[in-house]
Amino acid sequence: MTDFFNDIPQIRYEGPDTDNEFAFRHYNPDEMVMGKRMEDHLRLAVAYWHSFAWEGGDPFGGRTFDRPWFGDTMDHAKIKADAAFELFGILGQPFFCFHDVDVRPEFDSLADNISALDEIADYFGGKMEQTGTKLLWGTANLFSHRRFMSGAATNPDPDVFAWSAATIKGCLDATHRLGGANYVMWGGREGYETLLNTDLGREAEQMARMLSMVIDYKHKIGFKGQILIEPKPQEPTKHQYDFDVATCYGFLKRFGLEDEVRLNIEQGHAILAGHSFEHELALAASLGMLGSIDMNRNDYQSGWDTDQFPNNTPEVALAYYEVLRAGGFTTGGTNFDAKLRRQSLDPEDLVLAHVGGMDVCARGLKAAAAMIEDGTLEAWRAERYAGWDTDSARQMLQSDLASIDKRVRDEDLRPEPRSGRQERLENIVNRFV
Amino acid sequence: MTDFFNDIPQIRYEGPDTDNEFAFRHYNPDEMVMGKRMEDHLRLAVAYWHSFAWEGGDPFGGRTFDRPWFGDTMDHAKIKADAAFELFGILGQPFFCFHDVDVRPEFDSLADNISALDEIADYFGGKMEQTGTKLLWGTANLFSHRRFMSGAATNPDPDVFAWSAATIKGCLDATHRLGGANYVMWGGREGYETLLNTDLGREAEQMARMLSMVIDYKHKIGFKGQILIEPKPQEPTKHQYDFDVATCYGFLKRFGLEDEVRLNIEQGHAILAGHSFEHELALAASLGMLGSIDMNRNDYQSGWDTDQFPNNTPEVALAYYEVLRAGGFTTGGTNFDAKLRRQSLDPEDLVLAHVGGMDVCARGLKAAAAMIEDGTLEAWRAERYAGWDTDSARQMLQSDLASIDKRVRDEDLRPEPRSGRQERLENIVNRFV
Amino acid sequence: MTDFFNDIPQIRYEGPDTDNEFAFRHYNPDEMVMGKRMEDHLRLAVAYWHSFAWEGGDPFGGRTFDRPWFGDTMDHAKIKADAAFELFGILGQPFFCFHDVDVRPEFDSLADNISALDEIADYFGGKMEQTGTKLLWGTANLFSHRRFMSGAATNPDPDVFAWSAATIKGCLDATHRLGGANYVMWGGREGYETLLNTDLGREAEQMARMLSMVIDYKHKIGFKGQILIEPKPQEPTKHQYDFDVATCYGFLKRFGLEDEVRLNIEQGHAILAGHSFEHELALAASLGMLGSIDMNRNDYQSGWDTDQFPNNTPEVALAYYEVLRAGGFTTGGTNFDAKLRRQSLDPEDLVLAHVGGMDVCARGLKAAAAMIEDGTLEAWRAERYAGWDTDSARQMLQSDLASIDKRVRDEDLRPEPRSGRQERLENIVNRFV
Amino acid sequence: MTDFFNDIPQIRYEGPDTDNEFAFRHYNPDEMVMGKRMEDHLRLAVAYWHSFAWEGGDPFGGRTFDRPWFGDTMDHAKIKADAAFELFGILGQPFFCFHDVDVRPEFDSLADNISALDEIADYFGGKMEQTGTKLLWGTANLFSHRRFMSGAATNPDPDVFAWSAATIKGCLDATHRLGGANYVMWGGREGYETLLNTDLGREAEQMARMLSMVIDYKHKIGFKGQILIEPKPQEPTKHQYDFDVATCYGFLKRFGLEDEVRLNIEQGHAILAGHSFEHELALAASLGMLGSIDMNRNDYQSGWDTDQFPNNTPEVALAYYEVLRAGGFTTGGTNFDAKLRRQSLDPEDLVLAHVGGMDVCARGLKAAAAMIEDGTLEAWRAERYAGWDTDSARQMLQSDLASIDKRVRDEDLRPEPRSGRQERLENIVNRFV
Repeated sequence: MTDFFNDIPQIRYEGPDTDNEFAFRHYNPDEMVMGKRMEDHLRLAVAYWHSFAWEGGDPFGGRTFDRPWFGDTMDHAKIKADAAFELFGILGQPFFCFHDVDVRPEFDSLADNISALDEIADYFGGKMEQTGTKLLWGTANLFSHRRFMSGAATNPDPDVFAWSAATIKGCLDATHRLGGANYVMWGGREGYETLLNTDLGREAEQMARMLSMVIDYKHKIGFKGQILIEPKPQEPTKHQYDFDVATCYGFLKRFGLEDEVRLNIEQGHAILAGHSFEHELALAASLGMLGSIDMNRNDYQSGWDTDQFPNNTPEVALAYYEVLRAGGFTTGGTNFDAKLRRQSLDPEDLVLAHVGGMDVCARGLKAAAAMIEDGTLEAWRAERYAGWDTDSARQMLQSDLASIDKRVRDEDLRPEPRSGRQERLENIVNRFV
Repeated sequence: MTDFFNDIPQIRYEGPDTDNEFAFRHYNPDEMVMGKRMEDHLRLAVAYWHSFAWEGGDPFGGRTFDRPWFGDTMDHAKIKADAAFELFGILGQPFFCFHDVDVRPEFDSLADNISALDEIADYFGGKMEQTGTKLLWGTANLFSHRRFMSGAATNPDPDVFAWSAATIKGCLDATHRLGGANYVMWGGREGYETLLNTDLGREAEQMARMLSMVIDYKHKIGFKGQILIEPKPQEPTKHQYDFDVATCYGFLKRFGLEDEVRLNIEQGHAILAGHSFEHELALAASLGMLGSIDMNRNDYQSGWDTDQFPNNTPEVALAYYEVLRAGGFTTGGTNFDAKLRRQSLDPEDLVLAHVGGMDVCARGLKAAAAMIEDGTLEAWRAERYAGWDTDSARQMLQSDLASIDKRVRDEDLRPEPRSGRQERLENIVNRFV
Repeated sequence: MTDFFNDIPQIRYEGPDTDNEFAFRHYNPDEMVMGKRMEDHLRLAVAYWHSFAWEGGDPFGGRTFDRPWFGDTMDHAKIKADAAFELFGILGQPFFCFHDVDVRPEFDSLADNISALDEIADYFGGKMEQTGTKLLWGTANLFSHRRFMSGAATNPDPDVFAWSAATIKGCLDATHRLGGANYVMWGGREGYETLLNTDLGREAEQMARMLSMVIDYKHKIGFKGQILIEPKPQEPTKHQYDFDVATCYGFLKRFGLEDEVRLNIEQGHAILAGHSFEHELALAASLGMLGSIDMNRNDYQSGWDTDQFPNNTPEVALAYYEVLRAGGFTTGGTNFDAKLRRQSLDPEDLVLAHVGGMDVCARGLKAAAAMIEDGTLEAWRAERYAGWDTDSARQMLQSDLASIDKRVRDEDLRPEPRSGRQERLENIVNRFV
Repeated sequence: MTDFFNDIPQIRYEGPDTDNEFAFRHYNPDEMVMGKRMEDHLRLAVAYWHSFAWEGGDPFGGRTFDRPWFGDTMDHAKIKADAAFELFGILGQPFFCFHDVDVRPEFDSLADNISALDEIADYFGGKMEQTGTKLLWGTANLFSHRRFMSGAATNPDPDVFAWSAATIKGCLDATHRLGGANYVMWGGREGYETLLNTDLGREAEQMARMLSMVIDYKHKIGFKGQILIEPKPQEPTKHQYDFDVATCYGFLKRFGLEDEVRLNIEQGHAILAGHSFEHELALAASLGMLGSIDMNRNDYQSGWDTDQFPNNTPEVALAYYEVLRAGGFTTGGTNFDAKLRRQSLDPEDLVLAHVGGMDVCARGLKAAAAMIEDGTLEAWRAERYAGWDTDSARQMLQSDLASIDKRVRDEDLRPEPRSGRQERLENIVNRFV
């Protein structure tokens, strides 16, 4: 046991009226929402990287945090793991997620990296058994080390592709062993800084091959988790190939991988791509590609990924509304890909940021469920398209321009617009959030 | 003959040193560039809507221009056509493009609209024969009239779909009769204002069906031109379904239409989508989807589509560099989808805006051609990826994670990064622009 | 009486649990909030232009609305006024705001414009007396007509300055006569499209002179209302001189006008300028410049001013928090500078958009008041700066570099950072919204 | 001598047609431009931080560069200085700029930091005497160390204010001793992350006091250089107090400091603030506040400060056009606040990035000078405002609303708009760039 969280109590549900900072006001794991436990709906996960590996730096300044586990040894890695599982316990979050580099020191050789990862994975395994905490997903960090500066799968140097492939193998093995529900690939350097030195076509093919190899390997080892890719339009690179949901879909469809892969969609990445979070979720759902979500809040006035803990309930409610409309999560869940502000130095900050985020998710989920149970929104949507459910409309849709033209002329059709009722729908949403 | 351009001379090439405002300094149609006439490379077109139909309004103010052809009668439409062909002649632009509503008055019935369009198309036909001006593309405006406020193909009302289909038929017929090289579909209202009243999945299917019908009809009437769709991320709607090149590709691929459709890519739309123009062109080329371009310049500080005449040669050069790398235009060309600033009231402004734009395109094309003929950029690009041209790299790409992992361990592979040389490449570009 | 709102009942407060669409769930004018009636806190106003003059057009399409008062005659203007006061009554909104051109037809001569304005103002006067509705502010539209295309006060043509001055005089006279609480100047065309044709320095001086004349005239006629200017960074122009709060302050200070003018701050304009709404409010308050607010919601994914009705309670609460911290409104209030979406065609849409907006404002105000009454936020803020309230800190602030340097060395000062506790503060806010 | 630049020759001017990568094609220090040597116009400076201290990291990855001077000892600091002066020599750049932390290791006590700075300053002094390189400006880095995470002058902790004051004193002393032409203050952490924990008003007063102390101290020690502050809207903080030129002006004016301070304006910061670079320059010039420039190029598609070497000549020409219109630099100059892309690993990249940037500046300057000597642009600008140079216009500007109103009515004034001729002006610019 570390003494990092010494003075911090186990967080419990006390209801909306409590003034205890160290209590949930909305997150109540066993509360039934649309016939399912809240915990089983949300499937919340702590992100190891932000909460344990990030040191508080930004492009204009270095480390601000002071943590007993900062350091490059296996001992540090184990103290970090101890603290992480202590946090999971304090919060009662059922899941966590990690990159290989979050949990182990960095060595010069691949073999040493994998063996360090394996050792830590075993250490995790023991703790997971003890505590019941599960792994939502594992992933490989193929973007931080300088060898990846020009890409991992898309690197102009085949040796970097090789290193990346071997690293993914190791991470997928570990994820499999730990019973991970998913395996995520975020292509942080799969993109370009300048078109002048880039062969877009070649790099797309490399990226597709890597993904295919991962899928093949998953089946070979019997990993039943879902492979997820994660859209982001830019940052760190000027242009990232997995720009947004629509781009990822086109890529997968092009290479025939759309049945094997789903998407891990992040609020902040949606915003950077010029979309709302609910747009990306609704689009993915309509394409059958919705996998899991990274929950955070991007600053609307900052042009980079701020990864803040979520705090706007109406926005979170609209996101869960799309998740619930799509049938809810299966293997996926809600990963807090959210980091403290770099001025939030104290252990209390780390705990309470999660508490606040969990409460916002709980409120959002309950509001979304209430909107679905109320039914008004969906009834109005259905009514708007009712004309398309007639036989004549269905027949027209299967006909051709000439016959439609004939009908428009014969009937002297003059369509009259009908109100879209946006504000009335927004008012309905506001009853629930 | 109108007297609108009375005092304005025919514009001729006089070379870079002329101080004659009414002369080309770079656009020289017969100059050979990479073995082809400059005119045949650029295939420049005047956009009827901006140059003749737009009245100078913006969301905060109305008409500023004073044109003899403003008015709602067929007579006005013919004066407009007269003036338009006078401008084509003054500039020596070989092509033009139009929407139905740019060239005819608006009537209440579809039949009247189509018959007015046909009458004007015949009037155009005579002028085209006389002058040699050709039609780069025709299109239907399915976004301005209030009946389209909730979409054309994607409208919740099947009758609007019908009206749209019949309108497209009329416009495609006219385009075919006038020998149009392409037919464009821009979905200005194919998108949504709020997800709350929108069924994304249903609307995508409607849009795909409309496109399929257009393709079928094109083949039925023997139209040999290319069908083009035009990416734009938003404006007028909050979200437009044809967001960008990658999104359009995914849509076409999903519905099996990727072999029948190419893209008309606009600089301003690329910018609004968070891309550079050259990105969209390079991506389309790599997917085999590059059709034609709308050439303008978006204000980088304004969040809407400003459609300014192009004036930054280095940017235009990088765009044509991608066009030339892709083999140049076939049916496509360079449409000036650019409008005067609303303070540019005078006939001189209209003429000289095109003159300046044509010169910038000519300079850009020549610079792009020189970069290709010089070969340094492409040699450096090829050299960067040379490692992938080895047998061992090719074999690796066809292998699997486990065998790659074995090789990385066996060889204790430790890839070293190599410079991406971005600034040196940018310096090379600057030799030519 | 028009029959436009025929089927729509008077809107009354029914509490949060009502399912009556035509009722307030939160807006309860007589409810006491921090010792003042809610109505007297919010001072809500209907914006004549969006709600009655706007026809539903956007840059890509024309009129969508169908209103009996659309037309260019004085009769139309009076039907419009009838309908407007009917809406005020249905909503129980205590105030309205208007531009001259919203309420009268446009004539060719200034004299006719002013006399039409006067006639309508008298018509308003009668209705105001009858109903008790008051005028929050009047203003002159000096941006829509083509004569203003290059600015009003900043126009290169002195005659446009003259026309503008005379128009403002007429509007200020009318506002005075109607007992307006404020007079607003928004410089929709006071800016530039290109620096190449613009003399920034000269235009700033013209703008300052106009403002000075308005102040002088106000005092001359005994108008006791507040003169307000309204920051906006761009749109319609590429750059607007009244960019944001800080810019307006610098301008006023430069010309010695800071004691005579306050700011009318709009949510949408704040967003366009790269600020949060609460930033602009807090900054204005700290400079003593907070006057009034334009309440709307800008789409975070659109780069232009969308002027939507507000619907995000947490954001509105943070805005009113700054208003309340600054002591609340005096002459100012909350003007709904918000327009229907152009698909919202029905009279019900117009009414219910206001109802929803009023409810969001009421919820926001109550949440803001609760946060202030709770006191935790302000206590934490004060505690954070407590070090500056010591004598030694105050003395240091009045000392000089050399003596501070000496102390740092003498005491070997090594300051340790303390947590900024952002997430904990956000959690506190979330208790109230 | 280091051997870092071993294989790299002295860069000399060879003219536009050279194909030598290691030559200037436009930068020719002795070439006369408008009667002054090019070098004396541009006053180019190398930025120590980007070119020598930055290690190639970004928020998603660490060090990519491999430099013999990376390390925390005074020996490393001296090797760094050696290499820096070698680069200055290779390029023939007449100036450099530095922060304290760029040039010395970091110690725990202020006394050690200052004494290390002094030692390096002496080392610089020797080299400057030998080589003739001069110091454009010095500055203190008050944003990277964790003690500054909540601000320097604006920190809630008075001890951080003290540390900052003492640090500035040390840096100003060193700058004075080295004959620096200016002293810059960039408030990288003078702003906020959340309004919830921030007292805007208090922090503004602290910032003003610090600036006043610096001014006082400058006079006390007889430093003749110019004090410069540097606008930036955000990044690292969510909101930076020195948002843009207009904001800085208002701040200085508020505290009566506008005669003692000028602005150091950066292209990238202008873009982040929603302005063009030339806007910020023209505005500063019109306010008499133009001091110096940070020359770089921001990526228009990235929402953070990319600090790329400039490469777009037309944009750079418009910037120098404003500088020349304002009379050119006095104490100020052109600092390359530009960094290599993190993939540009080689010494050649570092040298050639500067070479390319210098050439772009030289081309921009020559184009700007040619536009001024040509005179057309300024003649057209003057002609546009000519109406204001009449007696009647001048009288009107000194009159009042009532008398202007009378004249408009008496003369039945009906102003007619005149063309703004934007495209024609842009065409003129394109003759020169």
